[in-house]
Amino acid sequence: MTAALQPVLSHLAGRLDAAAILTGDAIDRRYLDDISGGVSSMPAAVLRPRSTAEVALVVAAFDAARLPLAVHGGRTGGSGGAVIQQGETVLSLERMTAVEPVDRLAGTVVAQAGAPLEALQAAARSAGLMLGVDIGSRGTATIGGAIATNAGGVRVLRYGMMRAQLLGLEAVLADGTVVSAMRGLAKDNSGYDWPQLLCGSEGTLAVVTRAKVRLHPDPPLKAAAFCALPSLDAAIALLARLRERLGPLLSAFEVMLAPLAADMAAALGLTTPVDAASPVCALVEIHGFSPDSDGATLSDALSEALDAGTATDIVMAQSTRELEGLWALRDGCSRFISQAGPAIGLDLSLPLAAMPGFLSEAAALVAAADPAGRPYIFGHLGDGNLHYIVLTSRPDAVSPVLHRLAARHGGSVSAEHGVGLLKKPYLPLVRSEAELALMRRLKTALDPHGTLNRGRIFDAPIRP
Amino acid sequence: MTAALQPVLSHLAGRLDAAAILTGDAIDRRYLDDISGGVSSMPAAVLRPRSTAEVALVVAAFDAARLPLAVHGGRTGGSGGAVIQQGETVLSLERMTAVEPVDRLAGTVVAQAGAPLEALQAAARSAGLMLGVDIGSRGTATIGGAIATNAGGVRVLRYGMMRAQLLGLEAVLADGTVVSAMRGLAKDNSGYDWPQLLCGSEGTLAVVTRAKVRLHPDPPLKAAAFCALPSLDAAIALLARLRERLGPLLSAFEVMLAPLAADMAAALGLTTPVDAASPVCALVEIHGFSPDSDGATLSDALSEALDAGTATDIVMAQSTRELEGLWALRDGCSRFISQAGPAIGLDLSLPLAAMPGFLSEAAALVAAADPAGRPYIFGHLGDGNLHYIVLTSRPDAVSPVLHRLAARHGGSVSAEHGVGLLKKPYLPLVRSEAELALMRRLKTALDPHGTLNRGRIFDAPIRP
Repeated sequence: MTAALQPVLSHLAGRLDAAAILTGDAIDRRYLDDISGGVSSMPAAVLRPRSTAEVALVVAAFDAARLPLAVHGGRTGGSGGAVIQQGETVLSLERMTAVEPVDRLAGTVVAQAGAPLEALQAAARSAGLMLGVDIGSRGTATIGGAIATNAGGVRVLRYGMMRAQLLGLEAVLADGTVVSAMRGLAKDNSGYDWPQLLCGSEGTLAVVTRAKVRLHPDPPLKAAAFCALPSLDAAIALLARLRERLGPLLSAFEVMLAPLAADMAAALGLTTPVDAASPVCALVEIHGFSPDSDGATLSDALSEALDAGTATDIVMAQSTRELEGLWALRDGCSRFISQAGPAIGLDLSLPLAAMPGFLSEAAALVAAADPAGRPYIFGHLGDGNLHYIVLTSRPDAVSPVLHRLAARHGGSVSAEHGVGLLKKPYLPLVRSEAELALMRRLKTALDPHGTLNRGRIFDAPIRP
Repeated sequence: MTAALQPVLSHLAGRLDAAAILTGDAIDRRYLDDISGGVSSMPAAVLRPRSTAEVALVVAAFDAARLPLAVHGGRTGGSGGAVIQQGETVLSLERMTAVEPVDRLAGTVVAQAGAPLEALQAAARSAGLMLGVDIGSRGTATIGGAIATNAGGVRVLRYGMMRAQLLGLEAVLADGTVVSAMRGLAKDNSGYDWPQLLCGSEGTLAVVTRAKVRLHPDPPLKAAAFCALPSLDAAIALLARLRERLGPLLSAFEVMLAPLAADMAAALGLTTPVDAASPVCALVEIHGFSPDSDGATLSDALSEALDAGTATDIVMAQSTRELEGLWALRDGCSRFISQAGPAIGLDLSLPLAAMPGFLSEAAALVAAADPAGRPYIFGHLGDGNLHYIVLTSRPDAVSPVLHRLAARHGGSVSAEHGVGLLKKPYLPLVRSEAELALMRRLKTALDPHGTLNRGRIFDAPIRP
């Protein structure tokens, strides 16, 4: 512990409960966990406030003492934002998990930042509504983290990202000021929408403490099909056609590119309803409100695709259980990869038109950088978002060339996982110096001493 | 013209074409027009650049000389943002109207800021797509203005506000820096989403010069009904039920509260398909993708409402022509009011649960403040957005009490029209001092000398 930290902790000890301040051996190893694989230092301390006022107290004290805080939600981020750098104290929102009763008429729910996404989903469900955002880590990821990183997931196509669900926000600025905009109106153009600036800023501008989130009507029909497609071009053509035919009914268009489905099915002992060795396996889902006919609209559109040759085989789920089975296949991708060996994972966004060209060039680059490298590709084709995984023992040779290639094809180096610490070197590939200067100006205006998540996304000057 | 302006204009005259700089008698009176009724001063000059580079040149020169610019799109804003204050020079985007060919696969279109919304709508239509935002002033309002003010309109319920359409942005900061984020990917979490900060900032943080906008599939079915409803409570119950039954199909739920429909119909010589004297007339519309059944889903839901007593009469449009007729009735509201006499117009957002209470208290307050005052109320009930108009010769007595009442009921003083100059006095009713301080900090960070739209939304300190 540094000499500067001791008086800050003493100051806080008189104001917080005993469980709010952890030091030394009391710090559980879980605070060092990070699913992105980044390696954390031991935190100088861990602070666990129970309320917005306590967060404000903590942040103000650290800011005044010029000591940096690493803000922790569920530590499920894919870009190492929660990795602890030398000298940082963890500010964890884990004790702020309250979820208020759903407001059915407004279609909203209010929760503290540390509430897991799953808790909001359950609250919504019990009111006959649904949360638009769903991600694999729903049981651990927090709503505050989802807002801070503008989380995406599997149904962005229909419901948008976390940004689109955000109706009200409360946050603590670096100087300890509490800002609150919790009216949560669907339409409100009264001044700058600062919650939208905070959304996706990865905890570098303020600490999210509470939010009001939009909920959606729960659709009476959820229908899905698993499709074997002859090529990525065919997948893109099918996506375009389904968008045209189904509009907002289309809730997911997920793909696995060969050899992923076959290797995954073999490794996990799963059976796919269509030939797993097909060039592309796609999971197509709709959320419908004319239940008697929307399913037919989907199967008509898919039959057309069979006739047109953009699909070679199609199996519609015949029950909720079968639909869940299709999603379990999709969820198997991450599970398979996490056990497949040392890997790098890129979270790329690409214009659909550029995707086929990107993929063939990428395959050549991987082969050149690491002849033993094995790419596995899956993701949210409906959003132009591919998770490009490479099993490789040479991450430093493979990762930069692929990120550069994505940028050259008009893509982004982070579609939904954010930049954190791990993607930081690649940010200048997709953001001009003018944009980076603008971001630094905003950071410096709101957090001049670099108290909050210092060094995440980019480096900014720090005022002493 | 001030002594400081002359050298700036001389500097620019050598770099811009002759039509780009207007002074003295060459300044058309149209630059003084403002539909909000605010009174403009004569501008010191009018500048009409043709490109982003020229905008940058102009802005940098004015910023260096510490001279203020009033940024003009189509001058259709409802809050006086385009009203010219003493000493301001107009920066008009009116010569930057290019619309690029639609990218059908990506579902996007790129346009310069001065392009009218209608031009983007036409481009979208010709590609079989649609723009999600539609407002009455579509022929004059510009895409740049719509982004700068986060425009709303009649289909927010389904497609969201302008913010939700914004995929890419190019803008000029106060110091003349051009920032550009035109990759326009559906998902991109690579650093701060500064375009979302600019959206709705009413030209106070930067000048929007170009944008990439999301387009939507054009629905094969557009169906609408005109409904007579017995009360506002019934309207809210019907809205809730239709949301549950129709989900994203519901594209509009517009209301006129008595006596508006009857007075408008009489004044404009229009016929309403249901009794215009009903307590509430509602226009309900869906955009459907299962054309054979979605219309039936709508009429089923409305029949249920008749049975339940939440509607007293319902007429479905039987053709496109009839549907357009229903919209013409809705559009008649603004036309009727603009000719009805001196009026104030509030653009309120309210929680649905608070709306009935607000309306009865508001009626009493209007009667007390101006016994001759006559309220006319219409708007986008689906978004909780009411345009509350009062024909009154005592605007200063009526307007503040209604804004205060809306704030007290958890509402906003600006749902979609922004704050500009006219709503500025009311902003502290709905924004805390901490929020206003945060907004000022952002303004000062990006525009320290107050060069861009000075004094709009709020006043900020100006660095000399």
